[in-house]
Amino acid sequence: MTPRLRVHNMATSLDGFVAGPDQSVDAPLGVGGGRLHEWVFETRTGRAMIGADGGTTGIDDDLLAQGFEGIGATIMGRNMFGPVRGPWPDESWRGWWGDDPPFHHQVFVLSHHPRPPLEMEGGTTFHFTDDAIERVRDRAFEAAGGADVRLGGGASTVRQFLRARLIDDLHVSIVPVLLGTGERIFDDVGASGADYECVELVSSASVAHIRLRRVH
Amino acid sequence: MTPRLRVHNMATSLDGFVAGPDQSVDAPLGVGGGRLHEWVFETRTGRAMIGADGGTTGIDDDLLAQGFEGIGATIMGRNMFGPVRGPWPDESWRGWWGDDPPFHHQVFVLSHHPRPPLEMEGGTTFHFTDDAIERVRDRAFEAAGGADVRLGGGASTVRQFLRARLIDDLHVSIVPVLLGTGERIFDDVGASGADYECVELVSSASVAHIRLRRVH
Repeated sequence: MTPRLRVHNMATSLDGFVAGPDQSVDAPLGVGGGRLHEWVFETRTGRAMIGADGGTTGIDDDLLAQGFEGIGATIMGRNMFGPVRGPWPDESWRGWWGDDPPFHHQVFVLSHHPRPPLEMEGGTTFHFTDDAIERVRDRAFEAAGGADVRLGGGASTVRQFLRARLIDDLHVSIVPVLLGTGERIFDDVGASGADYECVELVSSASVAHIRLRRVH
Repeated sequence: MTPRLRVHNMATSLDGFVAGPDQSVDAPLGVGGGRLHEWVFETRTGRAMIGADGGTTGIDDDLLAQGFEGIGATIMGRNMFGPVRGPWPDESWRGWWGDDPPFHHQVFVLSHHPRPPLEMEGGTTFHFTDDAIERVRDRAFEAAGGADVRLGGGASTVRQFLRARLIDDLHVSIVPVLLGTGERIFDDVGASGADYECVELVSSASVAHIRLRRVH
């Protein structure tokens, strides 16, 4: 099967925001945005990501786990990598995830500001690139060696890939809160939405999961 | 119990639109917006609304039916009443619903342009009003005689009432399509979203239903 570019568990508020405003070291998802990910850390898979035991099984856990299956490389926006904006003042920021990030493969971070690759423990290397997104996608597929590539956030990264019609699978997790403001995932995506059809709609008591697949 | 102002089955696309662009007589929900209501007419309750037999029972049908229970009056925006904009050229437009509209009570239509009340068959009377929305709400509660009041669309009507913190129950039905453009329900609602908590999240295979209740 042709490798696919996949978005998983894009946690989105009922009013369409994937992060609150004013991202910072203390608020990686912006003010109020943490509520979008609370459900993650109640699942077994989510707790394992932070080295904790226990957690729920079921729909939320199943869908969270699917996001890690068959993935050979990751692409993310700079805002997912960290809160630093503009040129890197130094190389001290090494991501949100500590010395051994939960990727264990090549990760391509979109940034207009060059920086040497950052090799972490556990097989994760962050590559910083301002290549065109089509080129980044090609590099990621090459690094994945036949496996799929996962596209992370933030919102503007997903919007760019969506507009360019590069996303094959798009899984949105709707959390029933109203943030009022923040970063919207579906803004100015134009007619690209017509390329997708829903292949699954399921919900737990706390999250509605919608999986779209590109059909055109 | 104090009567409540309730919004039901506000059918919303995954990208947050409750109608497509360019509403017209042929496209009451704007271009592409009809897809948001297809599920309605697959349910038993939805089919009964248009005088048809059959239809599904289950989650979608149950929630649709709830929207008619205990309602004594309705408020709607002018765009829900019809496609005419600006001053009424004449009184020939009498709503989308034929001679016997499915309300059977007093209906308050927000409009900046005055027009005499329109008495229909079956107990429905349309009142056109440019009163402040707080005053319209009071009039509707009075007309409802102790029952609840239902607030219909369109999007701008719901936004106005939401901003003014007048909505007690807000049920959003998310349909997994991307319209790309249209009328957004959750735009500039500011901090009012913080007043709501989710009291129910359920989904069928085609619609995710989120019921919010005002708690502040």
